[in-house]
Amino acid sequence: MWQPSVAPGAVDRIACVGAGVIGGGWVAHFLARGRRVTAWDPAPDAGDRLRRLVDAAWPALETLGLADGATRDNLTVAATLEEAVADAEFVQESAPEDLGLKSGLLARIDAAAPPGIVIGSSTSGYRMTDMQASAVHPERLVVGHPFNPPYLVPLVEVVGGERTHRAAVTWAEEFYTLTGKTVIVMDREVPGFIANRLQEALWREALHMLDAGEATVAQIETAVTAGPGLRWPFHGPCTTFHLAGGEGGMAHALDHFGPALEYPWTRLASPALTGSLREALVTGAAQVTEGRSTADLITERDRRLIAVLRALREVGA
Amino acid sequence: MWQPSVAPGAVDRIACVGAGVIGGGWVAHFLARGRRVTAWDPAPDAGDRLRRLVDAAWPALETLGLADGATRDNLTVAATLEEAVADAEFVQESAPEDLGLKSGLLARIDAAAPPGIVIGSSTSGYRMTDMQASAVHPERLVVGHPFNPPYLVPLVEVVGGERTHRAAVTWAEEFYTLTGKTVIVMDREVPGFIANRLQEALWREALHMLDAGEATVAQIETAVTAGPGLRWPFHGPCTTFHLAGGEGGMAHALDHFGPALEYPWTRLASPALTGSLREALVTGAAQVTEGRSTADLITERDRRLIAVLRALREVGA
Repeated sequence: MWQPSVAPGAVDRIACVGAGVIGGGWVAHFLARGRRVTAWDPAPDAGDRLRRLVDAAWPALETLGLADGATRDNLTVAATLEEAVADAEFVQESAPEDLGLKSGLLARIDAAAPPGIVIGSSTSGYRMTDMQASAVHPERLVVGHPFNPPYLVPLVEVVGGERTHRAAVTWAEEFYTLTGKTVIVMDREVPGFIANRLQEALWREALHMLDAGEATVAQIETAVTAGPGLRWPFHGPCTTFHLAGGEGGMAHALDHFGPALEYPWTRLASPALTGSLREALVTGAAQVTEGRSTADLITERDRRLIAVLRALREVGA
Repeated sequence: MWQPSVAPGAVDRIACVGAGVIGGGWVAHFLARGRRVTAWDPAPDAGDRLRRLVDAAWPALETLGLADGATRDNLTVAATLEEAVADAEFVQESAPEDLGLKSGLLARIDAAAPPGIVIGSSTSGYRMTDMQASAVHPERLVVGHPFNPPYLVPLVEVVGGERTHRAAVTWAEEFYTLTGKTVIVMDREVPGFIANRLQEALWREALHMLDAGEATVAQIETAVTAGPGLRWPFHGPCTTFHLAGGEGGMAHALDHFGPALEYPWTRLASPALTGSLREALVTGAAQVTEGRSTADLITERDRRLIAVLRALREVGA
């Protein structure tokens, strides 16, 4: 049975394998949280590019507040993958999205890194089950999927594969959370995880509209940024719908707007609004809004919307 | 040939037909922009509910800045629809989403309002062609679709029906823009317009995931609000993708992530990435980003992201 050799809160030495936009973003994030980072990337000029990326991100991280002792001097660029991970207490892999490449790289990391440490993969949508096949210690391999840029966007989706030990998933959840991330732990492998599936649905509908001449790129961008996109930093689709129901909340919204699920308002067909789906929505909405009144939620929504509108206005957006 | 009887910039008297969440939101918006509003709604307690809604919205509108002379005293509640619209210079209809109800109401408004004024409908997705059938002056009927809450979210989608005169569409575009709205004019009728199609695709994928037990309501909400949702107030899906391509922009992103369009990352299939779709995306992305460098856009994105993160932190989100 696999057991972690280091506690999530004790991790100081992190290895980042792959130092492009995502890997480099992880490097900047971990440095800003006061950790030491050893990075490796096969590109010949990877070290210089990585330092430029970290330098570009640093003012933003300073503005948000660095952890005690955080410094860019804690970055080392290793000459080989094996050197990078040899004494790491956590490894984040951020190679290009290619199943064969990632599986091979994870096997190399697994062979070179201490067996009691967790290895997270930044994959955008592959199942860990499909990537851990060649590993000797697959128990400690997890998906830790970030969003761009990883030094600012808090979300990380964590999920293990069939051969991942539950303790490694829990360890990763705790570790990422301790570095300031907002973590979703999935208990099953779904291609694209959760957030990418949602944004991919929106993206594909946008591509269809563009392809059919129904909207231009500029119209699609404005439709999001001047419209529903303004609410999405604080209300997801379920809370939005719950508020659209007024005092009756989600239940009223489903009665009122439910028929629209059958309208051709996107190319994606809706599931049937069965009793159990309805119940999951009503219960879930009450839970995420903590049973608060619609009037209260509306006041809070408006305060947040105004904060977002004013903040963007102040930075000239 | 239809001609407007009042210039968009000269409109002072606005009638709002339907005073629920959306209609009431429009009332608050127009009052805050210094206009006089006459509202009508068939509900027995509509006047009281409307005044409570406007009172609740007013502090937010004061924070954002009222127009000169804006006051809640400019609100009148009319006893009949006909009285509300008799001397209006613009009418906004916001009845419940029911095609027969809306068509009938628009016909009544059309019969009672001066023939040279524009009438806008808040419909979430009906085609004006299907709603204007019974009107005597269908030339001045347009869709003016807002987002909740209409007193804070700037987007309005404007589109005419087959019998709408082009001059009425242009008039509505100018009028809404002058009241501070961000307007998208569509040159063809697409069910759900643009923004609702995009958010509906996301919503339906969320419903599928919930229905299949792949995600909970809480996970869906966090996936959006802690992840891609943080970028959506300033970057739509195309700009996001353009930046994901690094210095190579959209073209590189399509080469790199294009294959993911065939992955089962949502239940919505993608259109084929043809040469013309690729060209539309590359050209469109360059246009909306004004040909600026990725480095420049990333600096700006980070500034905006930090502004949003800090603003939400300050209001306790």
